[in-house]
Amino acid sequence: MTELNDRESLIILSTLCEPGNADLAAALATHGPSGTLRMLRRPHPSTPLQRAVAARLGNEDLTERLGHVLAVTRACGARIITTADEEWPAALGDLEGMLDEADPNTRPPVCLWLRGKLELAPAMERSVSIVGARDCTSYGRQVATEFGYGLAQRGWTVVSGGAYGIDEAAHRGALAGGGATVAVLACGVDRPYPACNSTLFDRICETGLLLSEWPPGAIPQRHRFLVRNRVIAALTPATVVVEAALRSGARQTARRAWELDRTVMVVPGPVTSKASAGVHQLARGPGEVRIVTRPEEVIEDLGRLGEDLAPALRGHDHDRDALEPVAAKVLDAVPRRTTAASAQIAAQAGLTPLEVRRILPLLLMRGFVTGSDDAYRLTS
Amino acid sequence: MTELNDRESLIILSTLCEPGNADLAAALATHGPSGTLRMLRRPHPSTPLQRAVAARLGNEDLTERLGHVLAVTRACGARIITTADEEWPAALGDLEGMLDEADPNTRPPVCLWLRGKLELAPAMERSVSIVGARDCTSYGRQVATEFGYGLAQRGWTVVSGGAYGIDEAAHRGALAGGGATVAVLACGVDRPYPACNSTLFDRICETGLLLSEWPPGAIPQRHRFLVRNRVIAALTPATVVVEAALRSGARQTARRAWELDRTVMVVPGPVTSKASAGVHQLARGPGEVRIVTRPEEVIEDLGRLGEDLAPALRGHDHDRDALEPVAAKVLDAVPRRTTAASAQIAAQAGLTPLEVRRILPLLLMRGFVTGSDDAYRLTS
Repeated sequence: MTELNDRESLIILSTLCEPGNADLAAALATHGPSGTLRMLRRPHPSTPLQRAVAARLGNEDLTERLGHVLAVTRACGARIITTADEEWPAALGDLEGMLDEADPNTRPPVCLWLRGKLELAPAMERSVSIVGARDCTSYGRQVATEFGYGLAQRGWTVVSGGAYGIDEAAHRGALAGGGATVAVLACGVDRPYPACNSTLFDRICETGLLLSEWPPGAIPQRHRFLVRNRVIAALTPATVVVEAALRSGARQTARRAWELDRTVMVVPGPVTSKASAGVHQLARGPGEVRIVTRPEEVIEDLGRLGEDLAPALRGHDHDRDALEPVAAKVLDAVPRRTTAASAQIAAQAGLTPLEVRRILPLLLMRGFVTGSDDAYRLTS
Repeated sequence: MTELNDRESLIILSTLCEPGNADLAAALATHGPSGTLRMLRRPHPSTPLQRAVAARLGNEDLTERLGHVLAVTRACGARIITTADEEWPAALGDLEGMLDEADPNTRPPVCLWLRGKLELAPAMERSVSIVGARDCTSYGRQVATEFGYGLAQRGWTVVSGGAYGIDEAAHRGALAGGGATVAVLACGVDRPYPACNSTLFDRICETGLLLSEWPPGAIPQRHRFLVRNRVIAALTPATVVVEAALRSGARQTARRAWELDRTVMVVPGPVTSKASAGVHQLARGPGEVRIVTRPEEVIEDLGRLGEDLAPALRGHDHDRDALEPVAAKVLDAVPRRTTAASAQIAAQAGLTPLEVRRILPLLLMRGFVTGSDDAYRLTS
């Protein structure tokens, strides 16, 4: 059997261990990916990790297994990224520092399956998660749609979980706003759950992303939703909870966001509505929570929180050379003395407005471009 | 003309100056009440205060004027209290330390007109203000009624402004809950405004209080409502805002509460409702705000805030002798080894349940009695 390289080993390890496994993270830190896989294949399992993966490992040829995973990945139009890839979002590394005494299995992902046209890392630079109840009210649905729409329109990527209710409304709002949206799934990207949302998932793939830590074929087991929530919380600087009953996965996502030192925001509702009870309980603390009533307030609050960072993010000429070709094209089309709308920039650059709207957040974050409300100019 | 004593002078000064006057407060601090009045009557006005009161002072005989004020006060069944009286709530003294750079006229009241059966100072020991929009929604009305009801039922005095809308609902809720409620007016207690609420004001007088810094006959001028708000904020340890549009007197009351280091609480509502926009803006800071969704949470939060004080408030035997006769009767009827409901205590003490519910907060505050949810026993 051929020895698998590090990247291939990470893919195989993702089929052997559930995401977040603390023992795997420890083994990877000591032995590296190939070394860990070699260690796991030793006869006579002695460590807890060896015993845990024994059943899934079996006697199968791992090169064959790898071939199968790559084939099903290709078949559903997905790609695999690992920490070594440029598209890997650095924010996920913060999961290293997350402490949950009740649950040690909150380590960072080692592989992600992505399905869709969006490039993950740059899309996460200006992003917000919107989460909430599946069993939402028409009020919650309306609010989540408006937040998704308003954030997407202003160039922010909307991250959610693809579920019924608030998640779905947030994704749909973002699509209507002409922006990017990412559904973080608790199952394989080849069979996004719930199946009734399949038209929505298809539309998300066109401009956004389906994302999963699980390989294609994985089914959405109950505990996987909670494991998945740490990724939603980690990917974005802020998590907005729209509606949540007292017992709700959305509240767990908010807790993860706190543990990761992210901003938690809540949209209040009537105190007479059970669907808002969990939201209001979050707002009562003890964790710090921002009350938001409009998407503009989300951006305003994130802007304020990031003010200290802004000078450090200003662009320098030599950074310009490091830009990918499409981003450089967009930058060349942004005027210095007047402002231009994204459609004008697109016309000037010979790109689609969607491409320009996808790139502009990156240029804004890196300090090359200033502007808002669809009026941009070069940073002087 | 007979020289007026200090108490009489304060009553006359209340007819000469608008409440909160900073110049008057300074003169009182230097010359005392009688001395200030003497100073103001000197010919050839030279100070701003002298010039300000000249028109109202005229050449009238002040003994006659005093007689008139006392007569109209008596006629409407009211009484006058000043800082020297036992019924004067110490909390109003905190207005001394309040700093509002834009408005120096926020000094403490010097006289209060009270109409009703409640004794003010003990009633304020466990009290909460509920304020909000006149132009409220049915949601706001429902919530304010429930908060008034729930707080009153648990022995807390509900303070508000007697206006249409939220104020009215809070008062009505408190009356329905069988508890005490205080309407702080911006006009004379003989002509409470708005006149359409006269049946409500009559009911408030039966068990609660109408309260005003203005002498009988004073009309509710627009600026007086804002002056009045500082008293609502100062009287109670917490102010709960139920519904408030972006421009709203209730938000000014909340600001006063902050300036006085009181707790500001807000009841959220739908973000789609303009009537809740001011509430949510308060919740977004910069001042600290507690989100509350039920009256129990108001009490819980105030309890937590007061925990540090609790030991200092424990009763000692010699304090027991200082209790007024009715309070001593109630205390004698509270069991040591079991708990008793307020109705049982009333039967044992030969008092009405209302009297017992009025006294119990005092005994709880002073540490003689422990309990909640209508089950009380002596502090061991």
